[in-house]
Amino acid sequence: MSTETKWGGILPPIPTPFDAAGDVAVDALLRNLAHWNEFPLAGYVVLGSNGESVHLNDPETFRVLETARVGIPEDRRMIAGVGRASTRETIAWCRRAGELGADAALVLPPSYYRKAMTPAALQVHFRAVADASSIPILLYNMPACTGIDLNAETVVDLSHHENIVGIKDSGGDVVKLGEIREYAERRFAVVAGSAGFLVPALAVGAAGGILALANIAPAQCLAMYDAAVCGDWEEARTIQLRMIRVNAAVTREWGVPALKAAMEMRGLFGGAPRAPLAPLPEARRDELRRLLADAGIL
Amino acid sequence: MSTETKWGGILPPIPTPFDAAGDVAVDALLRNLAHWNEFPLAGYVVLGSNGESVHLNDPETFRVLETARVGIPEDRRMIAGVGRASTRETIAWCRRAGELGADAALVLPPSYYRKAMTPAALQVHFRAVADASSIPILLYNMPACTGIDLNAETVVDLSHHENIVGIKDSGGDVVKLGEIREYAERRFAVVAGSAGFLVPALAVGAAGGILALANIAPAQCLAMYDAAVCGDWEEARTIQLRMIRVNAAVTREWGVPALKAAMEMRGLFGGAPRAPLAPLPEARRDELRRLLADAGIL
Amino acid sequence: MSTETKWGGILPPIPTPFDAAGDVAVDALLRNLAHWNEFPLAGYVVLGSNGESVHLNDPETFRVLETARVGIPEDRRMIAGVGRASTRETIAWCRRAGELGADAALVLPPSYYRKAMTPAALQVHFRAVADASSIPILLYNMPACTGIDLNAETVVDLSHHENIVGIKDSGGDVVKLGEIREYAERRFAVVAGSAGFLVPALAVGAAGGILALANIAPAQCLAMYDAAVCGDWEEARTIQLRMIRVNAAVTREWGVPALKAAMEMRGLFGGAPRAPLAPLPEARRDELRRLLADAGIL
Amino acid sequence: MSTETKWGGILPPIPTPFDAAGDVAVDALLRNLAHWNEFPLAGYVVLGSNGESVHLNDPETFRVLETARVGIPEDRRMIAGVGRASTRETIAWCRRAGELGADAALVLPPSYYRKAMTPAALQVHFRAVADASSIPILLYNMPACTGIDLNAETVVDLSHHENIVGIKDSGGDVVKLGEIREYAERRFAVVAGSAGFLVPALAVGAAGGILALANIAPAQCLAMYDAAVCGDWEEARTIQLRMIRVNAAVTREWGVPALKAAMEMRGLFGGAPRAPLAPLPEARRDELRRLLADAGIL
Repeated sequence: MSTETKWGGILPPIPTPFDAAGDVAVDALLRNLAHWNEFPLAGYVVLGSNGESVHLNDPETFRVLETARVGIPEDRRMIAGVGRASTRETIAWCRRAGELGADAALVLPPSYYRKAMTPAALQVHFRAVADASSIPILLYNMPACTGIDLNAETVVDLSHHENIVGIKDSGGDVVKLGEIREYAERRFAVVAGSAGFLVPALAVGAAGGILALANIAPAQCLAMYDAAVCGDWEEARTIQLRMIRVNAAVTREWGVPALKAAMEMRGLFGGAPRAPLAPLPEARRDELRRLLADAGIL
Repeated sequence: MSTETKWGGILPPIPTPFDAAGDVAVDALLRNLAHWNEFPLAGYVVLGSNGESVHLNDPETFRVLETARVGIPEDRRMIAGVGRASTRETIAWCRRAGELGADAALVLPPSYYRKAMTPAALQVHFRAVADASSIPILLYNMPACTGIDLNAETVVDLSHHENIVGIKDSGGDVVKLGEIREYAERRFAVVAGSAGFLVPALAVGAAGGILALANIAPAQCLAMYDAAVCGDWEEARTIQLRMIRVNAAVTREWGVPALKAAMEMRGLFGGAPRAPLAPLPEARRDELRRLLADAGIL
Repeated sequence: MSTETKWGGILPPIPTPFDAAGDVAVDALLRNLAHWNEFPLAGYVVLGSNGESVHLNDPETFRVLETARVGIPEDRRMIAGVGRASTRETIAWCRRAGELGADAALVLPPSYYRKAMTPAALQVHFRAVADASSIPILLYNMPACTGIDLNAETVVDLSHHENIVGIKDSGGDVVKLGEIREYAERRFAVVAGSAGFLVPALAVGAAGGILALANIAPAQCLAMYDAAVCGDWEEARTIQLRMIRVNAAVTREWGVPALKAAMEMRGLFGGAPRAPLAPLPEARRDELRRLLADAGIL
Repeated sequence: MSTETKWGGILPPIPTPFDAAGDVAVDALLRNLAHWNEFPLAGYVVLGSNGESVHLNDPETFRVLETARVGIPEDRRMIAGVGRASTRETIAWCRRAGELGADAALVLPPSYYRKAMTPAALQVHFRAVADASSIPILLYNMPACTGIDLNAETVVDLSHHENIVGIKDSGGDVVKLGEIREYAERRFAVVAGSAGFLVPALAVGAAGGILALANIAPAQCLAMYDAAVCGDWEEARTIQLRMIRVNAAVTREWGVPALKAAMEMRGLFGGAPRAPLAPLPEARRDELRRLLADAGIL
């Protein structure tokens, strides 16, 4: 692991709670944060993919960021998801996030006109955002949602911009993570975007993980990370292998609905996602409970 | 062609003009509409993919729809692009579009959480939108931008909802278009989403086309359509084959930047797209001019 | 339709029959051909995808080609599928096919090292094969099986080689078919590779179809083709739309096992495909029978 | 790493040498093997993807396997690539490979009729092959060439067959490798299929690697493996990161032509691949030489 960055460690990308009417539930958000604050997490991602950023309108986005900053201690990082389809809106939201107290902005590549989003076009976009943003930028590679996969060369080039401090990569291509680690600026943080490949990512030099699983299993995620940092790779692997199936359930298999259901099973506020996402069906809840139990989380 | 629908004919999906500062240029929009109104087009799609809907914020979206309605004669249809990531925001925008005078709403499938967007989930979404919308709904299949390809069975099922009146399909799979035509409600309109396959789509029963090319070559698009409607398939084919390359240039190859550049060559207001889309490079302008000339458009 | 080619018309790509022991059943092949010969089909494709070419070893390949030539009248074309992974083996099989009486060779692009199979590399391959082959070459675009989709520009370039006489395209992209038709040599035949899009392909200038459906519904395929050739597009469309679902069942949905099952329902020899293809499950046979009845084939 | 398997360690998948006339060069094969035998490699894969198996006819396949067995010491494993499109031909070649002295057969999934190659169909195929083969079977997952990606569940199920002893996975999905390692039989070997992800694969319990890079950098591959086995993950990572770019060049980027060119630079017999693969262009040779030098291989 790189120890030269302050953008590593373990951070959960927190879900946005909605009440029975489907409105943002700020109290529930604060209660969840109070629970997570009991663990030595490095910080939080607010309004990432698990935060259903795309489901909120502008006033709701303000409210969630404001509330989260209240609930996140000053000495922990708050990273705000701010990807928008246009460069100008992305810049506007980076600035708003900075004004609302975010320590960094997590920026998705624009993806609607994906044929036009060549590596060169993406470079122009990210540089324009990084130039104009009042807070540092983390790149956010999320091919399963965007259909765009940032390549190593693009990321290495962008690492030379002083306001671009790292990448959250959810694609899981450890060859790419290794190549970025080898050729990017030393200060640039490579962050695993899913607990399914945290240990292999650390093995090639990742600085930490932004892990949906850390919402429901912060202790296990921290233990996996600490073991690898301390050189106990047998222990790290043992935890890693035990976490793969439950992590898949709350991420790529069943997604946010399963993560919210698991939060309820763990005593947190989960609630329903917004449509078109549907609450996890009852039959899958039993299977999810079993997966949580098998992994030692319940 | 089906003659039982009022949702057929030829409609251009119009670009949104931006001024030198990058702001919405409402005057230019009105001037462009005045030009197009000289042709017997059935109507217009406002804020579709060519309208850079995803690049506008909410106030800009209001302004463009309001302005377009002023410029579009009452007896021509105004179809508003209103796809949003959440069901609730999509419904809200369908209603706003209705209040602003749109005759129908063109609704993209939500695509961010695409793994969860099963045919069943999409049905629930579109039905909820159609139930709540004050104006009719056209489905909008645009796999190149969304990564989601509505299948024939889903579309046929949705055709039975009385407030869902048709589909604009830009995927170009004529087998699917034919299957929808055969099994959907008779009143349901199948509309070709690109001039590259208008004639083959008409050959399997499409009712018309929403064609980017109609912004720069309305006469040719109308001639192609009229020839097929009148049974002169030799003439229809001759025009069709001549339009394929120039159409590809202003759609799937170079996209909105090329369409806007071609509009300028045709004496319309084109202007630059919003970043991250970039104006068409100079070298490609020459090639575009040649393609327009080869097709008899310039 | 182009009338300048002798490579048009309707041809079935015939299945290879296997007996109960899984060996090639030459008698059954001859009996099937005798049945098809009663229809005015332009010829046959032997050992294409429906012929399970990839499942045969070299001696079996010889036997099937030899037998087919016996069963195919001299005045009907026999086109032999001869795609191989290496250029040298492809050439060897073109020559053998010529010696065995084939009128043309249908050549798949090599696809194992697909990353290396750039348009330029494919041009070199096809030109080398066409140079060395004793019989004319038809290109065979079959992206569903090869993962490679020949683009229009490559095909147009190859059309200038005098020993390359056409393309069977099973991809179904009618825009591409139209572009090839417009820019390829006039003598070059564009042939639809599936009955699901025969009429739209004819609408953009295709010369005919090599259609799995013609094995079980030669009359309907010929009627669809004849109607379009005679300018009766309403009739052509009516048949086309009726054939889409049954055609999907015996091609892209259930494949060769369904085609063989349908042949049995039609009184031909079908038999089982070779593993790893499995005979059509019983439940699907009922559905297939219903689809055949709905289409007027049974 | 699992130490309970004899199918681990480092093995090069060796290229098949062709002489100037394009014929198999058995002498060159023996000379290459004599060089590799100087390193403590666990064995060799003969006629895998790097061996251009798909480019050889049957007599050539016999000759290469026979020759390789002569050049491979008895105490080193010879694994023969024998994937064929049909179950019956795959079985025939497993048996022939056994008769020619192979210790195991590396079996690709059939991929031509890929739509039909469901997990269930692949299970039936691999079980039939494993039942009938006289030698043990290793599964070969190579999605870049086959378009088929074996999933973890299928592999875990197959691991319970006593004649299926492991998997070479070239897909690089370490989450999948971890899941297989956790749930497959303990004796079942998970083998990394590319040097680009050897260390992360070992971190989740892989038993070794079948690495194209080991043809040209056996010392480095062995050092990387040994460091990880001994728990020196810092050293393993250092070598790993240094190998990523050169490994990409001789595998997924430029493939067999680059591997053969690199072999010549290292004093081995390389020669040209068979068409449609083309020799590495001169310009890329300079770049390849630089990559080899940067990695400390030249």
